[in-house]
Amino acid sequence: MGLIVQKFGGSSVADASRIHRAAQRAIAAKLKGNQVCVVVSAMGDTTDDLLAMARQICENPPKREMDQLLATGEQVTIALMAMAMHAQGHEAISFTGGQIGLVTDNSFTKARIQSINKQRIFDQLAAGKIVIIAGFQGVTPEGDYTTLGRGGSNATLVAIGAVLGADVCENYTDVDGIYTADPRIVKNARKIDRISYEEMLELSGLGASVLQTRAVEFAKKYNVPIHVRNSQNENEGTWIVAETATMEHIVVSGAALKMDLIRVTVKNVPDHPGVAAKIFGDIAAANIVVDDIIQNVMDDNTANISFTVEHGDMHDIKRAVDRLVTELGGDTCATFHQGLAKVSVVGVGMRVHTGVAQRMFKALADAKINIQNITTSEIKISCIIDKDTADRALQIVHDAFGLGVAGG
Amino acid sequence: MGLIVQKFGGSSVADASRIHRAAQRAIAAKLKGNQVCVVVSAMGDTTDDLLAMARQICENPPKREMDQLLATGEQVTIALMAMAMHAQGHEAISFTGGQIGLVTDNSFTKARIQSINKQRIFDQLAAGKIVIIAGFQGVTPEGDYTTLGRGGSNATLVAIGAVLGADVCENYTDVDGIYTADPRIVKNARKIDRISYEEMLELSGLGASVLQTRAVEFAKKYNVPIHVRNSQNENEGTWIVAETATMEHIVVSGAALKMDLIRVTVKNVPDHPGVAAKIFGDIAAANIVVDDIIQNVMDDNTANISFTVEHGDMHDIKRAVDRLVTELGGDTCATFHQGLAKVSVVGVGMRVHTGVAQRMFKALADAKINIQNITTSEIKISCIIDKDTADRALQIVHDAFGLGVAGG
Repeated sequence: MGLIVQKFGGSSVADASRIHRAAQRAIAAKLKGNQVCVVVSAMGDTTDDLLAMARQICENPPKREMDQLLATGEQVTIALMAMAMHAQGHEAISFTGGQIGLVTDNSFTKARIQSINKQRIFDQLAAGKIVIIAGFQGVTPEGDYTTLGRGGSNATLVAIGAVLGADVCENYTDVDGIYTADPRIVKNARKIDRISYEEMLELSGLGASVLQTRAVEFAKKYNVPIHVRNSQNENEGTWIVAETATMEHIVVSGAALKMDLIRVTVKNVPDHPGVAAKIFGDIAAANIVVDDIIQNVMDDNTANISFTVEHGDMHDIKRAVDRLVTELGGDTCATFHQGLAKVSVVGVGMRVHTGVAQRMFKALADAKINIQNITTSEIKISCIIDKDTADRALQIVHDAFGLGVAGG
Repeated sequence: MGLIVQKFGGSSVADASRIHRAAQRAIAAKLKGNQVCVVVSAMGDTTDDLLAMARQICENPPKREMDQLLATGEQVTIALMAMAMHAQGHEAISFTGGQIGLVTDNSFTKARIQSINKQRIFDQLAAGKIVIIAGFQGVTPEGDYTTLGRGGSNATLVAIGAVLGADVCENYTDVDGIYTADPRIVKNARKIDRISYEEMLELSGLGASVLQTRAVEFAKKYNVPIHVRNSQNENEGTWIVAETATMEHIVVSGAALKMDLIRVTVKNVPDHPGVAAKIFGDIAAANIVVDDIIQNVMDDNTANISFTVEHGDMHDIKRAVDRLVTELGGDTCATFHQGLAKVSVVGVGMRVHTGVAQRMFKALADAKINIQNITTSEIKISCIIDKDTADRALQIVHDAFGLGVAGG
């Protein structure tokens, strides 16, 4: 008996029969005496199809209109999910983000949740209904639709779990849980049983696509356990929970790959205080997330500043940086290096074990993979490499730390 | 120079290139110095596709969820339309029904508009933008999506035209205007240049599909001229305007056909006051629109009450009437006669010309078409006939009043 929030991703609601199966899962949890909330994504490839339709009509569509468009995907799913539960004889009610007062800032296409009016949800749960909520979307205070960025349905899952004080957030996907590396690339990758919020944060920030960074941050902040499970079977998946002492015995929990990065280098930047703040202030104002930053000061009192951004931000970053270069004047210029990737290893055990970085660099060097940049945190090490060597690099790093299944 | 509200139906926005063409029309009107509002329907067969998806999942979906689902269709179009205008270099902003406070009652799937917050529209028009509004949809005071029934985008068109005090509502379709009869059935049907609100009201109530009754009622009430035009050419279409003296010279303006009617007969109803009120009160409470009503009192102090409803209401009407029969008890029973149609002629000239009904009945009789029921109003005559004879009946009546094009 408790309060469960379940989330079904796009592939788990891709057609009528899958929607019915997901509905069945929610009803099963309800019949066990739980109160059940269900967060859903758009069906299958709907979001990609909508994006393609938009791009066919307008090369660089206004972001407000993009969100107006994309928000329809989840709205279709919630209605069909409520109908499926109704067909199976159970009461359910669907809500868009706006209908539960899920208010965000107005950063269209990458909005952040500010508040949720939980009363309407509690009222319907108390009335015995399963409450179905559109993931990925919210509204501005003015009532304009916003979306939460790729994987934003997970942010909705955890935010709903947090405001309702849920006992668990069940994240249903088409895989059995979180793996030591992407199993599509690394054949001997192993399912992880338990992983800490911190490790998951690093992994998702580094390109592990199951859970978005923001969702894990939220879960950590409100200490909501997330259970990542396969919607097609009853297996235990991966539990994402607070760090425990036993987790430290494992040096590296997982390896991750982030593809399609661009390195932007701004050269001959006047080396005086405030310039870096201006550069990254302008980029943040353009709503672009910057990954790793490297700065070198030259002999002539200028600096070169490099940073990586996602390939999808190419159009926006180019505009922002070109404007900056013009403003800074002088010899300042910018280059854009496409076709990069980042391979990383993550583990809370790094805090107490030494030699982890060296083992990673040696493995890559032995395989003749050139490391272009290195960045580290307390519990992760990342190397920027050429995109063409990325899959091989992931396998090599994975093997170097013995992450694979025995005999895999 | 003025304020124009344009509406593009589903076939006029069926794909990217048609959306661009519609956007072009709106921009052309804007560049002539007008303020322009655009109301759009869902693209092509979207609404039917969504309905089919719903029916695949649930035989009798909850109407609230149906509206949650259907409202997405128009939301996709408004966003794409705004993007198309943006791509053509013009500022535009899209609004869902909820975003302009288009509040309706909570009769899901058949809601009626109660109010519109015109300020947000005026603000955007004043800022020089083309304002794009989702047709067919509104929200309840609680923020739940509602839809306005088939053809509801026209209700939106006229309601927006009325609250804004528009100079004209341009209704763009894939035909050249209103015809003397459905040209798909009657080959020699002729385009009407001007028609009165009253005639159009009767025609649309009788199955002429271009404009919904409610839209014309609204236009009449607020005296907003409607111009029904073809989105594929620049031809003048049909103007729907207040009645003028010259219109009386034409005895019959058009003929119409309403297909797929059901006649419900409740037999042996106790003949005392209040029973009919109860029957139609219950049916109205179930949100079913009743067409023609016929009552005969029998010798034994009971009555037979017949009425027609649309085929789509079969499920609801059966449930409502079966419950009524149980409540009334005694010998009361009900029959449901499917497969009927209604052929009608309409014209304000009937007010001053005689012999119109007789001419219609004779034409049908000469063609051996059996008239099952007759209903009339000041400006129309309708006959309920077998659905199988419907197309032929329409052609015969059309010819009997000389409505066709010369040599057609």
